[in-house]
Amino acid sequence: MKMEKEKFVAGIDIGGTNTVCGLVSHSGVIAGRSDFKTSSLPRFSDFTDRMAAEIKKMASDAGVSLSGAGIGAPNANYYTGDINNAANLVWKGVLHLKSDMEQALGVPVTVTNDANAAAVGEMIFGSARGLKHFIMLTLGTGVGSGIVADGKVIYGHTGLAGELGHLTMIRDGRTCGCGRKGCLESYASATGIVRTAEEMLKEKERKSSLRELKEEELSARMIAMHAEKGDKLSLEVFDFTAQMLAWAITNAVLFTSPEAIVLAGGLSKAGELITVPLKKYIDEMVMHAFRGSFKIITTSLPESDAAILGAAALAIKKGVEA
Amino acid sequence: MKMEKEKFVAGIDIGGTNTVCGLVSHSGVIAGRSDFKTSSLPRFSDFTDRMAAEIKKMASDAGVSLSGAGIGAPNANYYTGDINNAANLVWKGVLHLKSDMEQALGVPVTVTNDANAAAVGEMIFGSARGLKHFIMLTLGTGVGSGIVADGKVIYGHTGLAGELGHLTMIRDGRTCGCGRKGCLESYASATGIVRTAEEMLKEKERKSSLRELKEEELSARMIAMHAEKGDKLSLEVFDFTAQMLAWAITNAVLFTSPEAIVLAGGLSKAGELITVPLKKYIDEMVMHAFRGSFKIITTSLPESDAAILGAAALAIKKGVEA
Repeated sequence: MKMEKEKFVAGIDIGGTNTVCGLVSHSGVIAGRSDFKTSSLPRFSDFTDRMAAEIKKMASDAGVSLSGAGIGAPNANYYTGDINNAANLVWKGVLHLKSDMEQALGVPVTVTNDANAAAVGEMIFGSARGLKHFIMLTLGTGVGSGIVADGKVIYGHTGLAGELGHLTMIRDGRTCGCGRKGCLESYASATGIVRTAEEMLKEKERKSSLRELKEEELSARMIAMHAEKGDKLSLEVFDFTAQMLAWAITNAVLFTSPEAIVLAGGLSKAGELITVPLKKYIDEMVMHAFRGSFKIITTSLPESDAAILGAAALAIKKGVEA
Repeated sequence: MKMEKEKFVAGIDIGGTNTVCGLVSHSGVIAGRSDFKTSSLPRFSDFTDRMAAEIKKMASDAGVSLSGAGIGAPNANYYTGDINNAANLVWKGVLHLKSDMEQALGVPVTVTNDANAAAVGEMIFGSARGLKHFIMLTLGTGVGSGIVADGKVIYGHTGLAGELGHLTMIRDGRTCGCGRKGCLESYASATGIVRTAEEMLKEKERKSSLRELKEEELSARMIAMHAEKGDKLSLEVFDFTAQMLAWAITNAVLFTSPEAIVLAGGLSKAGELITVPLKKYIDEMVMHAFRGSFKIITTSLPESDAAILGAAALAIKKGVEA
C-alpha cells in the first residue's frame, strides 16, 4: 500500500512594499517562506520569474510537488487573472498575473485581492472555519473586505466585489485616496484613526497626553497606548472609530445577513479598545430583525502567517471546488 | 409518443391589504387569478384554507395539476418558511406559512419576502433574464430589495438578507417605521418623496404649484405630475430623491458588483424624472473601478402581474434547482 503524500500549494502575497512567498500544506503547515522587495524588479516578467524561482526552490528543498498556487494582490481580478492599474505597484497597465505565473509554475494559479484572500484564509484555516456566511474586514492602512455567502466569496459581475472600504459614509466627508469623499477607509483604518486624533487635537482647549508626542510620532498604535493609559481624547478617538465601523457593519448586515463579521489587520489588535464600543454601537444601530443574529470575531491567524495562508487557501479551495 | 403537458405552479402574493393568487405556467402565462382582502379572515388557518381553495379551484377549472407554489409575503423567511411578527398583517406571532400551505395543497411550497420574489420574477420572466448578478429595488410605499449573486438570491444566515430599504444613510436623519433613523426607505419611497416635498414646502418663500393642493392630495404621483409640468420645487424633490438613491446604489455596487440594478414599484414609473438625475448622480458618486460596470434598468413586467409572476417564479426556480 502506498501512502498518499500530503499535498502542497504555494501562497503568495504581493504587497506594495514586500512580496511574500510560502509553501503551504493542505493542513495549513507553512513548510517554507521567503520574501523580497516588490519594487526591486522593475520589469514585471522578472518579477514573476523571481516568484516562480522562489516557489520552485522551496518545493525542491522540501522534496514535494505543487498542486496549485494562490496569489493575493492589489486590484487582482479573480475572473481575468489580471492586475489592472494598481496604484501601489510599480508596474502600470494590465498585468497578466495568473497566466504568466501558470506558465512559469506549470500548475493552476488563482488570484484575487488581498482582502478576499484573507477571507478564504479565515474560512479554511482561521476563525471562520465552519461558517457559510461572513464578512471579513481587514482594518490596516486601508480597509479591505471579503464577503462570503453560502460558503463562496462573492466576486460579482466584474470580479471586484467586496470593496466596503469605499462605502460612502458621509457625502461631504473626508477626502479618500480613491478620489471620492467620506469613504469608510478614511475613518476606520490606521490612517483614519490618526486623522480623527488630529482633528480632535485641533480643539486647543482639550487636554491630552498625545500633545506630548511629536507630530510624526502620532500613529494608531501610539493612540491605542495612550487610550490604554486612560487618555480621554485617545479613548474618544477609538469611540468615534467604533461608531463609524458599527454604522458600516449594521448596514453590511442588511446585504448578506452574515453569521459573523471577522476583523483582522492592525486595528483589530487594539482589542477591547475597539470591540467594546463597537458592540455597544452595533446594539444601538442594528435593525431589529438582525439583532443578535451575528457575532464580531477577530482573526485567529498569526499576523506573520495570515497573508501566506490566505493566498494558499485560495488555491486549496479552488482545488476542492474544481 | 406522449406530449408532455406544460407544468403549472401557483403564485401567491400576500400584501397588507390584498392577497392575490394566480395559476402560472412555466412559460409565464397566467391561466387564472383571484384576490381577496387579507384582513378578511382573522384566523390564520381560515386564511391558508382560503388560499388553497382558490388555487385548487383555478387548477381544476383549467384542468391542470400543480407542481408547486411560491408565496411572497412580508417578513417571510426562506429557510424556516415562517412569517415572524409582520407589522402589516393582522395575525401576530409566528405563522407556519410554508408547512400549512404544503399540507393544504399537497405540493412543495417556497416562501420569501415580496422583494426577493420580485427579484426571482425578473430573473425568470422579466428584465433580468440572463443576468447572474443584479440587485432588485422595489420603490413603493417602502423600499424592498433582493440581491442576486451568481444566479442565486442571497438569503444569508437568517434567511432575511437583502433589506436595503433600511440602510442607514444619515445617522440623525428622518425617523423610519422600523424605529431607527435615516433609513433609505424614509427618503427613496413614495412616502419619502412626500416627506421631501413637505420639508421643501415649509420654506414659505418658495413658490410651487404644489401649494394649490390640499394637504391630503400631496402624493408621489401628484408631485411627479407637477414636476412634469415644470414645477421647480417638484423637480427638486425628484432630484433629491435621485441623489439619495444614487448614494445607496453606488454603495450597494461595492458589495456584490452587479451588472444591473433593476428598479420596480411606483417610483420607477416616474421614468426619466427619476432615471435622468439618478444616472447623473451615480456617475458622480461611483467608485472609479465600478464606473460603467452596471446599468440601471426598470422592470419589464406589467404591475398587475409582477407579484404573481414573482411568487410563481420562486416555485419554478426552486423546482429547477431541486
